[in-house]
Amino acid sequence: MSSLFVRTLREAPADAEVASHSWLVRAGYVRRAAPGIYTWLPLGLRVLGKIEAIVREEMNRAGAQEVHFPALLPREPYEATGRWTEYGPNLFRVKDRRDNDLLLAPTHEEMFTLLVADLYSSYKDLPLTLFQLQTKYRDEARPRAGLLRGREFIMKDAYSFDVDDEGLAASYDAQRAAYERIFTRLGLEYAIVSATAGAMGGSRSEEFLHPSPIGEDTFVRSPGGYAANVEAVTTPVPPAVDASGEPAPIVHDTPAAATIEALVDSANELFPRADRPWTAADTLKHVLVTAVHPDGDREVLAIGLPGDRNVDGKRLEAALYPAEAETATEADLRTRPELVPGYVGPQVLGPNAPERADDAPSPVRYLLDPRVVDGTAWVSGANVPGRHVAHLVKGRDFGADGVIDVAEVRAGDPAPDGSGPLELARGIEVGHIFALGRKYAEALGLNVLDRNGKAVTVTMGSYGLGVTRVLAALAEKTCDDAGLAWPVDVAPFHVHVVATGKDAAVFDTAADLAGRLDAAGLEVLYDDRPKVSPGVKFADAEILGVPFILVVGRGLASGVVEVRTRASGDRVELAPEAAVTELIDRVRSALAH
Amino acid sequence: MSSLFVRTLREAPADAEVASHSWLVRAGYVRRAAPGIYTWLPLGLRVLGKIEAIVREEMNRAGAQEVHFPALLPREPYEATGRWTEYGPNLFRVKDRRDNDLLLAPTHEEMFTLLVADLYSSYKDLPLTLFQLQTKYRDEARPRAGLLRGREFIMKDAYSFDVDDEGLAASYDAQRAAYERIFTRLGLEYAIVSATAGAMGGSRSEEFLHPSPIGEDTFVRSPGGYAANVEAVTTPVPPAVDASGEPAPIVHDTPAAATIEALVDSANELFPRADRPWTAADTLKHVLVTAVHPDGDREVLAIGLPGDRNVDGKRLEAALYPAEAETATEADLRTRPELVPGYVGPQVLGPNAPERADDAPSPVRYLLDPRVVDGTAWVSGANVPGRHVAHLVKGRDFGADGVIDVAEVRAGDPAPDGSGPLELARGIEVGHIFALGRKYAEALGLNVLDRNGKAVTVTMGSYGLGVTRVLAALAEKTCDDAGLAWPVDVAPFHVHVVATGKDAAVFDTAADLAGRLDAAGLEVLYDDRPKVSPGVKFADAEILGVPFILVVGRGLASGVVEVRTRASGDRVELAPEAAVTELIDRVRSALAH
Repeated sequence: MSSLFVRTLREAPADAEVASHSWLVRAGYVRRAAPGIYTWLPLGLRVLGKIEAIVREEMNRAGAQEVHFPALLPREPYEATGRWTEYGPNLFRVKDRRDNDLLLAPTHEEMFTLLVADLYSSYKDLPLTLFQLQTKYRDEARPRAGLLRGREFIMKDAYSFDVDDEGLAASYDAQRAAYERIFTRLGLEYAIVSATAGAMGGSRSEEFLHPSPIGEDTFVRSPGGYAANVEAVTTPVPPAVDASGEPAPIVHDTPAAATIEALVDSANELFPRADRPWTAADTLKHVLVTAVHPDGDREVLAIGLPGDRNVDGKRLEAALYPAEAETATEADLRTRPELVPGYVGPQVLGPNAPERADDAPSPVRYLLDPRVVDGTAWVSGANVPGRHVAHLVKGRDFGADGVIDVAEVRAGDPAPDGSGPLELARGIEVGHIFALGRKYAEALGLNVLDRNGKAVTVTMGSYGLGVTRVLAALAEKTCDDAGLAWPVDVAPFHVHVVATGKDAAVFDTAADLAGRLDAAGLEVLYDDRPKVSPGVKFADAEILGVPFILVVGRGLASGVVEVRTRASGDRVELAPEAAVTELIDRVRSALAH
Repeated sequence: MSSLFVRTLREAPADAEVASHSWLVRAGYVRRAAPGIYTWLPLGLRVLGKIEAIVREEMNRAGAQEVHFPALLPREPYEATGRWTEYGPNLFRVKDRRDNDLLLAPTHEEMFTLLVADLYSSYKDLPLTLFQLQTKYRDEARPRAGLLRGREFIMKDAYSFDVDDEGLAASYDAQRAAYERIFTRLGLEYAIVSATAGAMGGSRSEEFLHPSPIGEDTFVRSPGGYAANVEAVTTPVPPAVDASGEPAPIVHDTPAAATIEALVDSANELFPRADRPWTAADTLKHVLVTAVHPDGDREVLAIGLPGDRNVDGKRLEAALYPAEAETATEADLRTRPELVPGYVGPQVLGPNAPERADDAPSPVRYLLDPRVVDGTAWVSGANVPGRHVAHLVKGRDFGADGVIDVAEVRAGDPAPDGSGPLELARGIEVGHIFALGRKYAEALGLNVLDRNGKAVTVTMGSYGLGVTRVLAALAEKTCDDAGLAWPVDVAPFHVHVVATGKDAAVFDTAADLAGRLDAAGLEVLYDDRPKVSPGVKFADAEILGVPFILVVGRGLASGVVEVRTRASGDRVELAPEAAVTELIDRVRSALAH
């Protein structure tokens, strides 16, 4: 400790939002170099190396071969697949001295595809899975939570190459199983959830989420085993309703009904139902959104959904991908004066929309929540300030240009596969695997000759695991009010020997015990600082989070030392000899698990 | 081999200038992703990992602690030291989505300085040496020779921090010794030569050059032990000459003397010396150069040097650093019509230059080679077309604004320390160490309190080792006409087992022997490809360059297998048992050396 490059800090960094971020900085594991960009100090680097080693072992065991691609890559392959544009402002772009476009890669599908196309040509060469542990870049709009959402980060990315769908399924399953082993070895709980493919494309995609209240991802689970990222949840479409008994639409004055809540109150007061009170679920509300396409085109969308639900930002983002969603501006809406803010109704949208010149900018596309099926009746805006309409029937009084499934998912909603009501949880995305199919191979010409000498397009999978994010998730899960508390497998050291007081015999014994633990193959951090108080040393040991702490101090006079377990706080006094044996046993059995 | 991701190529890559580049690509170790940017395939990555492990071990042994900095860094620290500008077009610059300036770091002095300033505050914290193995970027004007001069490459960079000069000297020596151990372990011959500091700044600097005909650096050595990069060679200044017997300058018509050679011929014909013929060394020639400073300012220099020497481009570059040298253009010279191209003489330069308005652009600075000492007499231009002057005496007839030591160094020149005549050699720069002093600590505020509680500026060293370049240098040194030929310590595998023919017993035995070598801890590549001819397998084994090749083939029927040494071509037939023992012995003794 007297020479280790580490300083524990009393204060949490100003930008720390989550405990892991705060402790990793306070314990001297990492240090911010720029927003979302971190330096690894010696202790952090040791933990990172151990996590990387576990990932590497399991990749090798799954038959994946390690390669290493550059981070700085030419534009052309990403242009060929459309991602140069699709990634938009998330991509760090670089120009070299000859004005060539380069990028700092966020992921490497294109380069792996080209590499295999370069070297392989026959079905006999496949299956093949390659992986790398590599530094990736993403110009996040809001880097946050320390290592959890950074702009420079380490990923394990693997790519599989197969001649047919069965091969891809097998490669996908092998990686999926390797991920399960990795997270199990790391002691990091995970849920495997269906996910949307986003920028990757492809047919099947699953995320590995570590359940955590600080997770940025919301996912759902049903008692029957359904699990999905909230973006991937599909709403079961209810059957159409017979609306023959529904009265014709009636326009009502609703002077003070600018919100759904006020509208429900007004309705119940001014035009109450006979059978039951109106609820927010009877109202059809509209959200005007502008989809900004990668080429810059702005498309205005009117989204109609039951008034008791809000649009979920992430589901909207996923549904519009690769376009980005913005709130529609006045300029976007200037050609549609009939859309009265706060009183938008479906009568002037969709197929009923007034005729426009073909070249009018921003035609408004009208998209409905899947629950708004034919025959359902709604209270909605009258496209006149201060007025609403009741008994608007879908299919009779209005139609739509399409369906969009972006309403928030709520606990209790039915699972799409009928496996029961959903519960919601938050999670940290630690892995994401994709059955990509042939998208990249087609765009970049990766063919092999099959058994009959015919050229076939290779089918691919892509498998990402966020190494730095795993480290942060582990820190978050294991830390407590006093600091970090690592599991033995990834801890920077196994044992933290603390010598207290000023007695030379104490320091001699501590050094001797540290040496014996080291000789037994344990990794030992020895706090040999001569003029630091026991209180500071204990506090430092708790912050640094080495799993076992061996205290050599006053007790030595009575022939005992103390073995502490950082995570549980357990303490036991033992003779020095016995303490060494005990620690070796504990560490070895933890590593052998 | 049947599943390893490797394909040997018959053709050298079109851009291969050196053997190592060609073989590393042909053997499937690396693959170009963009000019100067390479992908590491499985075999290359294994070699790289072994070199990194040796570097890491020796850094740890030297007491350096490993950290890891980002590659993508903010502009501000590099602005504070002036390097944001100084690096000019060699720096990859990046803008993020908020228009902040970032860079891809070519070296990390600034960041290490800030990190230590952040965490340390007392002399008791020092000395400290930190290092990283990290990916670096440099936008080379001419990336070439594969990994030897790339734009994305791996360096080990270390930085030392001390309170005083003695401390720095000790830290410098420790790194220097670690480099010696590293290159010795790698079997890479090296010369340690004095060097110029260039962009780094600082007082003392040495390069580790691996002598090689393909090296880009020229260095000199003397029998007495002097060694320097050609840029760092200083010319001994001869004593002043008594010129009292020298006649006054005489202008001669020299109609056809536009070159030094023609001038010497003309002089010997038209105004011969009595004592001996004129030689090129009697002439004073002038080179007009424009120094382009980092801020864009253009400064014209007239460099006077003996006519038997040329200006050395690299020495000029080093002398002018951070300015870059360009040939002076007509525009640069338009205010000095008295400088007649081909007939420039010193009479109108230096202190004798005609008066100019103070604000005249590009005043010409006149700098002389150190050999042009007071009292020496010269034949030089008369600043009139077709005329030269003889008996021009330095100090009597002309002076200068300064000295510049940029003439080419030649074999036989005296070493500056009097240790004998110099010999010239070429080398690959594999390491460069710098006693930086306080330049960075001053610019970035790295102070600690000394023993007396007084703030002192920390003094630093910086120590670079080109990991990817070391790999290329090793490949270059060891390869031959048939392919790569790795030393055991860094080879991707220790033994390449080749099974030839179609006999199942051969393949069974080969697999068994491979298994036994593997069980003994050797790293084995087994060529199990069933339908590949022995010729192709042997050729592949030679290209891949695994140090020992075990051939199991026809001889097995008579109870023998063959052990080949890749580098020497030695072959010996042994019983399978004996071959296993022999290979284990050879590998273990090579690794233990």
